[in-house]
Amino acid sequence: MDDTPVQDRLDALERRVGLLEDEVAIHRLINSWGPAVDTGNAEAAASLFADDGILESDLSYLIGPPAIAAMVHGEGHQSLIRGGSAHIPAFPIVRVEGERASATGYTRVYRHTDEGYEVWRLSANHWEFRRTDKGWLVTRRTNHVIDGGPEAPAILTQLFDEA
Amino acid sequence: MDDTPVQDRLDALERRVGLLEDEVAIHRLINSWGPAVDTGNAEAAASLFADDGILESDLSYLIGPPAIAAMVHGEGHQSLIRGGSAHIPAFPIVRVEGERASATGYTRVYRHTDEGYEVWRLSANHWEFRRTDKGWLVTRRTNHVIDGGPEAPAILTQLFDEA
Amino acid sequence: MDDTPVQDRLDALERRVGLLEDEVAIHRLINSWGPAVDTGNAEAAASLFADDGILESDLSYLIGPPAIAAMVHGEGHQSLIRGGSAHIPAFPIVRVEGERASATGYTRVYRHTDEGYEVWRLSANHWEFRRTDKGWLVTRRTNHVIDGGPEAPAILTQLFDEA
Repeated sequence: MDDTPVQDRLDALERRVGLLEDEVAIHRLINSWGPAVDTGNAEAAASLFADDGILESDLSYLIGPPAIAAMVHGEGHQSLIRGGSAHIPAFPIVRVEGERASATGYTRVYRHTDEGYEVWRLSANHWEFRRTDKGWLVTRRTNHVIDGGPEAPAILTQLFDEA
Repeated sequence: MDDTPVQDRLDALERRVGLLEDEVAIHRLINSWGPAVDTGNAEAAASLFADDGILESDLSYLIGPPAIAAMVHGEGHQSLIRGGSAHIPAFPIVRVEGERASATGYTRVYRHTDEGYEVWRLSANHWEFRRTDKGWLVTRRTNHVIDGGPEAPAILTQLFDEA
Repeated sequence: MDDTPVQDRLDALERRVGLLEDEVAIHRLINSWGPAVDTGNAEAAASLFADDGILESDLSYLIGPPAIAAMVHGEGHQSLIRGGSAHIPAFPIVRVEGERASATGYTRVYRHTDEGYEVWRLSANHWEFRRTDKGWLVTRRTNHVIDGGPEAPAILTQLFDEA
């Protein structure tokens, strides 16, 4: 029989369960981006980011929810939606460290075309998160298309640097 | 030291762990569809649905496991398998509410062709589930191809309506 | 009120949480392969495998971490990276049984080309894992491209054989 004091076992279990819940919450955050931007829900997309959250890619550098909402409302994005789009992340690797977390993985943007579906953008991503009183929020998402250049591998390799 | 009564902490932990297990079980259910239909295992595909479970898409409206099994046995599906197919869901967002649950996300059907692989169908999905004595089962799956029309966004936006 | 002895409830919770943590660890292992091989990190890729771990596919049959590292360093793989590649698994189904585990699912290798992105390889996979003092490691990964032949369905159907 385990003779660890009951309080200690409960404390340990609560920490472990909390960590699993954090992972689930962060996957939910990442996986909400697609349904938000593919339906043109600028408010839902913006609400995933902290007030000082940054979305940095080879396409743009946006700071804060209003800038992200403006991107969704913009003609470039609206045109993408009108054709039929799907923003689909792969299952990323999440790392939680107290009130901070990060994730590393791939994302794809699909477009519907007359000839079927194409992967328009396939990107390497690194996300950073902060636990807030509104739950986990994105503080930074950096992505770059995979095109054979050094930028995308530099993003992905952060997974191993952090280990 | 946490002075919450031990019984209360155990109760809370059991609820939280049960919720995490429910999420895992629902992902397993969703992710079993591909291996079932891509191997022509009609029984396995049908067994994911409740007796009154509905599979509704722009292609068909099927009610109950026998109708789903018949779809798998049908010439359209058999022809798809013979060429080489892969039904791959993206990581969906799952919400569990007691004995009911739902999920929202994307699915792709890939076909092997002489020129390589194509995404033949890329769809928005909303699943509903019920906990039964055989575990979680699908009570309704609604999907629609993403083609720029309003149907697919209407499916995805349920994620935010439910929130 | 639940009158199960506190020790028994703690034991049961620890087992259940351990199982959830095992699933997360195995997803992490599977999802680390892409960032490792797409950045040319041979050591990180090799370290996912047990000393006697096997990577078997229609392309090659590799035994042990050094053989896997050599594959990453090889000209075929280096050429793939130079063009821009992404190895993306779908969300697999994981089954944990004590010190052993398995997973079944799909993987894709994307290549960047002058015309955009193509799915170069779309494969059925079955992984086997062993818990070691370095955590979970791959003891065998078998994959085969989905091409309409019987090999890929034979891999996927193991999911139902194991059930």
